Amino acid sequence: MSSKNAIGVFDSGLGGLSAVREFLRVLPNEKIIYFGDTGRVPYGTRSRETINKYALQDARFLLDKNVKMVVAACGTVSSVAGNALEEALSVPYTGVVNPTCYTAARVTKNGRIGVIGTSATVNSHSYKLRLQKLDPALEVFEQACPLFVSLVENGIIHRDDQIVRLVVRRYLAELKENGVDTLILGCTHFPLLSEAVSDFMGEGATLIDSGRETALYAQKVLGEQGLLTEDTEIKTPEFFVSDTPEGFKSVAGLFLGRDMEHAVTQIDIEQY
Amino acid sequence: MSSKNAIGVFDSGLGGLSAVREFLRVLPNEKIIYFGDTGRVPYGTRSRETINKYALQDARFLLDKNVKMVVAACGTVSSVAGNALEEALSVPYTGVVNPTCYTAARVTKNGRIGVIGTSATVNSHSYKLRLQKLDPALEVFEQACPLFVSLVENGIIHRDDQIVRLVVRRYLAELKENGVDTLILGCTHFPLLSEAVSDFMGEGATLIDSGRETALYAQKVLGEQGLLTEDTEIKTPEFFVSDTPEGFKSVAGLFLGRDMEHAVTQIDIEQY
Repeated sequence: MSSKNAIGVFDSGLGGLSAVREFLRVLPNEKIIYFGDTGRVPYGTRSRETINKYALQDARFLLDKNVKMVVAACGTVSSVAGNALEEALSVPYTGVVNPTCYTAARVTKNGRIGVIGTSATVNSHSYKLRLQKLDPALEVFEQACPLFVSLVENGIIHRDDQIVRLVVRRYLAELKENGVDTLILGCTHFPLLSEAVSDFMGEGATLIDSGRETALYAQKVLGEQGLLTEDTEIKTPEFFVSDTPEGFKSVAGLFLGRDMEHAVTQIDIEQY
Repeated sequence: MSSKNAIGVFDSGLGGLSAVREFLRVLPNEKIIYFGDTGRVPYGTRSRETINKYALQDARFLLDKNVKMVVAACGTVSSVAGNALEEALSVPYTGVVNPTCYTAARVTKNGRIGVIGTSATVNSHSYKLRLQKLDPALEVFEQACPLFVSLVENGIIHRDDQIVRLVVRRYLAELKENGVDTLILGCTHFPLLSEAVSDFMGEGATLIDSGRETALYAQKVLGEQGLLTEDTEIKTPEFFVSDTPEGFKSVAGLFLGRDMEHAVTQIDIEQY
């Protein structure tokens, strides 16, 4: 495996691009190959069996591109299919759960951590189980926020939007009452609502962005294995999707936090 | 073709069950076979090419069950793939657009009709084009309400729920200002929000449920072709889905408006 190979990042759709944004910040010299399974999104409402099958196909597509590491930038995949991926892959793998939990466990002062994500993520209790393995004394409060995904995808994200404020309050009131001082944004869509979430939770709560923690973790793992590139050129990421790329650029720009200037290629994921 | 054969109804997911509810009311002696493409839902955000491909596969599955009529109980499929289906099928076909437009054009008094649906449905302008073909003098006002689908799927539907009221107002204020007296619920999810929509629109606006109009239309078409069953027994519908049936019964019950006592079978739709 060459250190010049790319890092492969995938998600059930385009939410994972919020993690790519963090990879581009943390590892600007690494080539990123992103696959968004836009033809089969969302995974969050599908069965465990289906999510496993899809995740393995997504990873095989990236391996076909000779990536040196596979990253599932998706709370649902990391939670449901993480073990299957770890066992099946011949290159380093990380989901978003482990890196995020390490950081949350380190930064909490009162030991009360909140976790928000899709229903599939929360029902899997993946963050809670991981956190309590790191430190059995941690108290973990979980809340599914399925409507957050739709709000983000429909661009209803402004901190002053009354709908945003109401939905945030509906989902987070109990976590706030429980006095969490650390809140894991366990879905790659959620960083786009971080201002509104932060407004509601107040200054006493630290938000943990799973994409950022995962990028930092990937840097550490690749560094330990001597697989960080020595090439100092800034690389252009490559993007692949499984539905037609219509409308990709506008949504991608939203998650990436910058204008999308890059080409995007459609592939047939069922062949992997 | 025997009049004893079933009527095949399909949708991208489970929303079409709100149309099945109407079929069971209008045609209780007809056998209904329902296919919900839960493994590939939602269609509304996908490309035209993908929606066409999926719709034809869905219809072929039903034809394999020897149905005497195919019904696309899905605003998106009817809008995007209606022509392709009509051309490809050897049995009578209807989507929800035509039956709904006939009724809307008949009941409006002031000639101002509102259409709400998913983004794909509204962007296709299928209802508007059809209505203005029926009567070029009609004024048609369209509004995509993508968040309605998520509200329904997350059970946030009560007319007194503040989130419901705010989202309804956000989407429908302009239609109301435009003085529509007839409002087409152009998505099979939307009847579950009809109380809240009605509260906001007021008594001056008649809501048209596309599922109900489609059941009445199917009754008419089958009657004209001598294909209505003469059997007076009340039939039990059969349900098929493309993802595992986990959680099917609770969601299905919501759309059907009654407890689900029926079995559901998973099939591999990619084979059709």
